[in-house]
Amino acid sequence: MRAAVRAATLAELAEHGYKGLTVEAVAERSGVHKTTVYRRWGSVEGLVEDALEQAREEPWPIPDTGAVEGDLRGINRLVQGGFADPEHGPVASAFVAAAVQEPQAARPLHAFFLSRHEQAAHVVRRAVQRGELPADVDAEEVIRIAVAPIYYRLFVSGEPVTEADADRAADAALAAAKAGVLSPRGP
Amino acid sequence: MRAAVRAATLAELAEHGYKGLTVEAVAERSGVHKTTVYRRWGSVEGLVEDALEQAREEPWPIPDTGAVEGDLRGINRLVQGGFADPEHGPVASAFVAAAVQEPQAARPLHAFFLSRHEQAAHVVRRAVQRGELPADVDAEEVIRIAVAPIYYRLFVSGEPVTEADADRAADAALAAAKAGVLSPRGP
Repeated sequence: MRAAVRAATLAELAEHGYKGLTVEAVAERSGVHKTTVYRRWGSVEGLVEDALEQAREEPWPIPDTGAVEGDLRGINRLVQGGFADPEHGPVASAFVAAAVQEPQAARPLHAFFLSRHEQAAHVVRRAVQRGELPADVDAEEVIRIAVAPIYYRLFVSGEPVTEADADRAADAALAAAKAGVLSPRGP
Repeated sequence: MRAAVRAATLAELAEHGYKGLTVEAVAERSGVHKTTVYRRWGSVEGLVEDALEQAREEPWPIPDTGAVEGDLRGINRLVQGGFADPEHGPVASAFVAAAVQEPQAARPLHAFFLSRHEQAAHVVRRAVQRGELPADVDAEEVIRIAVAPIYYRLFVSGEPVTEADADRAADAALAAAKAGVLSPRGP
């Protein structure tokens, strides 16, 4: 039942956005009785929170290409490709839009991103072990710096994001890490 | 009159967000008659568009420290400090939130950001002339890469942005530009 309700929540989000999300529509779409959805999830916020919690628990297919350049580019391609995907893109965009407007949606989304940073940071730690990056690099900051330009183009400046843009942002983060400016002590 | 209506629009945005913005409240706050506001600006979207157009025309105090490192840090401090400012921060956040949700608000905001990129790119072009950066650097991409982590923390991952975070993001963009990965041809 949890999976059915989650799938219905995501489909409704993709179609109508956070503002158009209703418990009634999720109940109808999932085939779960409305009173059950209300009892277990409480509200639209509860549905979104649970969907993000399930997403957070899913392992992310972090690339392992054998070199940090390919790994960081792989992460950025996952992000760029996710938003470009006709099925997943609208859901992901709806989550970000909801978080910008609704504090209740923001909390679980932020937890989701912290979990993603942590998972993705493994590629940086592996690179340190291989001697590709300085030992004192802030692994999660490398990930933030790598992915940030994708989100900036999509949600702030409103510019398209090509695969080349995603690769370039990954390469920029790597160059910064190699130059030693991404240590945890700050600049 | 235009300035009074704009000031009222920004104050209402800061207090109530885009969703709470009404022509009536802007009229009352500005002391301009409601029918005049309707006739000249048409709607909430018209008010926001005009406020952003006026902001776009204002020159941005682009720093000129004599070296690209200080200039890029200066730009990032302007962005970080702007959002942290108790008066301007809520207005700026309301614009970004509106653009994520409302296509009519997105168009003028995107034009505003393209204009900011263009203005800020002067510090990069100056650096090329001084020989601090390779001649084939994409000046506007350096700016995007520099500022993106600030917006990413504020609007996506929901993490605080310190002055040290802003400096580090500027330094990262500079390291990438120096390493030659930000040429217009892409990676």
